[in-house]
Amino acid sequence: MWKYETTISWDSGKEGRLHSGGKPEIRVVTPPEFGGPHNQWTPEDLVSGAVSSCVMTSSLFFLEKAGIKPLSYLSNASATMEKTPSGLAFTGITVDVSVAVKTEEEIEKAYSAVRKAKESCPFSKSLTCDVTLKAKVSCPGS
Amino acid sequence: MWKYETTISWDSGKEGRLHSGGKPEIRVVTPPEFGGPHNQWTPEDLVSGAVSSCVMTSSLFFLEKAGIKPLSYLSNASATMEKTPSGLAFTGITVDVSVAVKTEEEIEKAYSAVRKAKESCPFSKSLTCDVTLKAKVSCPGS
Repeated sequence: MWKYETTISWDSGKEGRLHSGGKPEIRVVTPPEFGGPHNQWTPEDLVSGAVSSCVMTSSLFFLEKAGIKPLSYLSNASATMEKTPSGLAFTGITVDVSVAVKTEEEIEKAYSAVRKAKESCPFSKSLTCDVTLKAKVSCPGS
Repeated sequence: MWKYETTISWDSGKEGRLHSGGKPEIRVVTPPEFGGPHNQWTPEDLVSGAVSSCVMTSSLFFLEKAGIKPLSYLSNASATMEKTPSGLAFTGITVDVSVAVKTEEEIEKAYSAVRKAKESCPFSKSLTCDVTLKAKVSCPGS
């Protein structure tokens, strides 16, 4: 069992400061569409980023297990929030992963690693909405 | 419908950089217990922080609606991840909120605002595990 602890202290207006041990502080605000300021992280952005980074760290684990050292890994994530009969809720998250590997032989193995990552990522399994993976693996010259 | 978009690019080792528009970059790493470095945010920390900040921004909304300007708002959150029959998953998140208000008359209204916030927070509703709220509202001299 593992515990992940954070503290948030309200600053003023619609802004707070998020801490976790000695990690860099993150300013978190109400989204601009609900009256918060621009250019700071919102709880909704953090949900999008948490799924995306969970898939990344899990992918790195499965890629390493398959003996693959990727050349690059980039992903874009989009979390959709909608009004539902029970109020605002996340209704879907898409994670669009691009991985570059060294050889053509690694391409299929890398696809498999990223798919396994999405399936086993503890966060995508803990959400009531679907997490959709789009993956593209390439190698130089392919 | 709202969309929250983020990008993560892998750096090296078990580290990446998370972006969302022009917001400050967040370095995200595999948790130390799975071989990542210390002192940087992990996807699991971000889940804990996203719930906690979602309850904060929702609380600020309901407090404002009730005409209450809090003196302070602080919360500690703890997200528990465990091995389950289907693999690693979040099994519970506790958010421990402390609010200070100006007058004794505001105490019950503030409790109500924080409870409503936890119920309506789009993120706590989108999780398969329970989100438990512990709230303490006080006023100077109470």
